[in-house]
Formats: sequence, C-alpha cells, structure tokens
Amino acid sequence: MSARLLKGKEVSDALVTQLSQEMAKLNFQPKLVFIRVGDDPASVAYVRGKNRLAEQIGICSLVNALPQETKQAELMELIAELNADDSVDGILVQLPLPEHLDSEPILEAIDPRKDVDGFHPMNVGRLWTGQEGLVPCTPAGLIRIMDHYQLPIEGRHVVIIGRSNLVGKPAAALFLRRHATVSLAHSRTRNLAALVKQADIIVAAVGRQALITPEMVKPAAVVLDVGISRVDGKLVGDVHPDVAEVAAHLTPMPGGTGRVTVAMLMQNTLQAAIVRRASG
Amino acid sequence: MSARLLKGKEVSDALVTQLSQEMAKLNFQPKLVFIRVGDDPASVAYVRGKNRLAEQIGICSLVNALPQETKQAELMELIAELNADDSVDGILVQLPLPEHLDSEPILEAIDPRKDVDGFHPMNVGRLWTGQEGLVPCTPAGLIRIMDHYQLPIEGRHVVIIGRSNLVGKPAAALFLRRHATVSLAHSRTRNLAALVKQADIIVAAVGRQALITPEMVKPAAVVLDVGISRVDGKLVGDVHPDVAEVAAHLTPMPGGTGRVTVAMLMQNTLQAAIVRRASG
Repeated sequence: MSARLLKGKEVSDALVTQLSQEMAKLNFQPKLVFIRVGDDPASVAYVRGKNRLAEQIGICSLVNALPQETKQAELMELIAELNADDSVDGILVQLPLPEHLDSEPILEAIDPRKDVDGFHPMNVGRLWTGQEGLVPCTPAGLIRIMDHYQLPIEGRHVVIIGRSNLVGKPAAALFLRRHATVSLAHSRTRNLAALVKQADIIVAAVGRQALITPEMVKPAAVVLDVGISRVDGKLVGDVHPDVAEVAAHLTPMPGGTGRVTVAMLMQNTLQAAIVRRASG
Repeated sequence: MSARLLKGKEVSDALVTQLSQEMAKLNFQPKLVFIRVGDDPASVAYVRGKNRLAEQIGICSLVNALPQETKQAELMELIAELNADDSVDGILVQLPLPEHLDSEPILEAIDPRKDVDGFHPMNVGRLWTGQEGLVPCTPAGLIRIMDHYQLPIEGRHVVIIGRSNLVGKPAAALFLRRHATVSLAHSRTRNLAALVKQADIIVAAVGRQALITPEMVKPAAVVLDVGISRVDGKLVGDVHPDVAEVAAHLTPMPGGTGRVTVAMLMQNTLQAAIVRRASG
C-alpha cells in the first residue's frame, strides 16, 4: 500500500464544520424537501442519510414518501406547490423513479433556483457556459476532495471514464473550469488502458468492478473512484484494490467519494437558499 | 498534397438542396430575425451572408440594424417583442455586441425555442443531457461534414483544441453523443503535441495561425480547422498548410467549416419553426 487515502469522512467533516459556521450567520432556516416514490431500499437509505445530515447541520428537512403507484400528474402537482412555496429552498427528487414515471419532465419542472441536485437543463447549461448555478453534488465533491488535499488540477490531464449526466459529463465541465485537460472515455473507447495510463487524475464512474487495474495507472496519479456495484452482496468501486500499490492518492470504497456527495448537497441547499432569498 | 479536401461548399450545397426540399413541403414560411448592433465590418458581412442564404432558401429574413449606442434595455425590449411575435421562428443576435452591452442576459432573454444560435443555457443543458434542442451551428456543421464524407466518428479519438462556448465545448458534446472518445485541450494544456498526435479527428478552434503543425498530426487523421485569425490582412486558420501533406482529410481555409456554419443556421431555423409551430 503506497497510495495516500483521500478519506471522504475527513473532507465531509471539514465541509460540515464550514457549513455549520455559515448557518450560524443566517437569519433564516433553509428548508430542503425530499421526494421519494416507492420503497426501493437503496433510495430509502440514501434519503435517510441526506435527511440526517441536513438535520445535523440545522437545515429544516422534510421527506415526502409517496406510494409506488404515484401518478406523473400528482408528482408534477407536488413540485408546482413546492416551487410556489416561498419557504422551500431546495427540492430533491430521489432517483431512480419507478418505471411508470418519466423523470425528464419531472426534473425539468423543478424551479432551477431550487434544483439542489443540479440536474435541471438550465443549471447544466450554466455549468457549461461558465455561469453561476447549482452543480451536481458528486462531481462537485470530487473537486472538493482535490482541494481539501491540496492536489493541483490546473494543467493536469484528467481522464474520466463514464459519461453519465450525474457524474462523468458534469465532472468534465468542472475539471475544465479549473483548467485541466479533460478526456472523456466510455464503453466505446478503444484502447482505454493507453488513455488512462496518461492520466494525472483518473475519475472512474462506470459501475464495473475492477475496471481500473494497476497496470493502467501511472505512478503519482490521483485516482477518484465513483463507481458502485454490488458483488456478492458487497458494494465495490470501479478501481481494483491493487491500484493502491501504484497510485499516489486514492479514494477508498466505501468511505470515499459517496460521503462527500451528501455534504455537497448541504452546500447546494445553503447556496440555493442564500441566492434565491437575496434576489427576492 | 495527400489530404482529401473536405469542401465546405460541397457540404453546404447538399444541405441547402435538402432544406429547399423540406421548405417546399411546408404550409408556412419560416421567419428569421437578425439583430445587429453597430457597424463592425465582420458582423455586417456575417449577417449579410446569412441573410442572403435565408432568402435563397425561401426563409423570410429580416435584419434589425441598430445604432452602436443602443441601450441594454432597448435590446431587451426588442427581444421581448420578437419572443411574443408568433410569426417569428428564429432570433439571432450577432456577436460580438458593443462593449457597453452585456451579452449574457441578452442571450438568455431569447425564447429557447427561437434560439437558432443554440447559445441559451437551456439549449446548452439539453445538448449535454442528450435531449432535443437547438445546437450551435459551427460544431453541428463539423458533424455534418464528417457525415457528408462518410467519415466514421464512433470509437474514434477526437482531440478538440479550444474550449469556447461557441465551438469547443459544444463540439465535445456532439462528438461524445456520436460515441467518440473526446479530449478537450486549451492554452493550459501541457504537451499538446503528444495529445494531438493520438487523435483520429482533430478540431482546431483557437484562432492562432499554424497552431497545428505537420509533426503533430497522425497520418490518416481527419483535421477540421475552425480557427480564424487575420494575418497581414488575410484570413488564416489554425492549421499549418503543410498538414495537408500528412492528414488524410482536411477542411481548407477559407472554403471549409465557415460555409457549413451558415447552412446549419438555416437548418436550425427550419427545426425551430417546425417544432414550435407543432407544439402550438
């Protein structure tokens, strides 16, 4: 084991301390509303974890747990109510939604100013055009990890594997904004190993066990593992454990990027509250 | 000279023929409105060229030539009027605007359904999340050139130099959508030559003469030159002329990508008209 571990708890704790200090200065209590449809165990656990951290920081946090058979129109109506409710700062629809629901118009119905997940096209557009907006939590957390450990980004070559709307693509925008050279690879990429081998920073965000093997990693590389898959009942990342023998810095799994994601959601809620309330 | 020239006129002519056929089937005349502020000679020439092609195809095309001293509020008011005018399908504000005007809120004021330049954050967001929308003309033209000459994109490594909102970033989204591996390089990129040398497809979009030299180009590469700079009164691209000895395919400059951009604007206008009028 040569790699320094980039510990999610350390980064998250520091961010939570900072956010608590910012909270203490507010003359209002930010309010975050979760919408969860059905009882998918992973979704239940995710929402519970986010809700718990919100309460810990002092954000007023409400969970709308809707039945599995909730109709599209009912969900749209609830979002319209929350959009209109001036006391609500953030709205988060936990994904994935049940199959009979169409998530695209639902996410687009959320007021972009309350879109704490940063998935609304308006926020995605602002991210790519370099304007202020709400940024997806997982990729924002990757930048936060880099900054916490004072790892430089500018001029570095970042290779991102996986091109999802949740992680890969917004991560590309954020690293580019910080002046990295960015390569986006995916399932159709030829010669993935040769590309990854050039990376100063590797972001693995596919969800395939051991996708990144030690031979693919340049010594001195920073490896950020975002992938999650379940193997024999255990959660594993995209990075083979032996990569720790080669990389200079590595996020563990579990205990790495996931924890920071939840803290970034709190930061987004604070930001959304402050910006919206300031603009009246 | 070994490279096959990818001729803008050939691609543009084919697209214009196709669009004229589509126009003949419409029971309405699409309407495109240009807004030009001041008398910057390049802007005058660009708008004239776009206007001429619109008329040739049969699009009703109007140019609002506003005085240099036009105020922000006046421009915003004109855009609001054009947004509200049901007969208007496309609105194009020619950039750059005079220095005293703030282009960001102006571009954002345009109804995204009439945003034929594809610069509105809503359209940028839709581009990156894989939804339907209006796409910037120059990068859309690059894909069109590739398709016209039946050059494959999927699985190829595209290296884009330049990360502007007009070309570099949207080109990354479009090539990614077509399943290329995409690298985005720029002024802070270290070892640009080594990265470009790996490219199957090179997009040069910086505006610096001879940025891409023959040594940087892999034989069999496709080279798309989007850069424009003026040297001794002559317009030149980013690609050194000797690259023609190495590359397999190359857009000439002039006579390359620029001409296709203008034709793509006509396609956007048609698309905007058809989609908006169909949705009532």
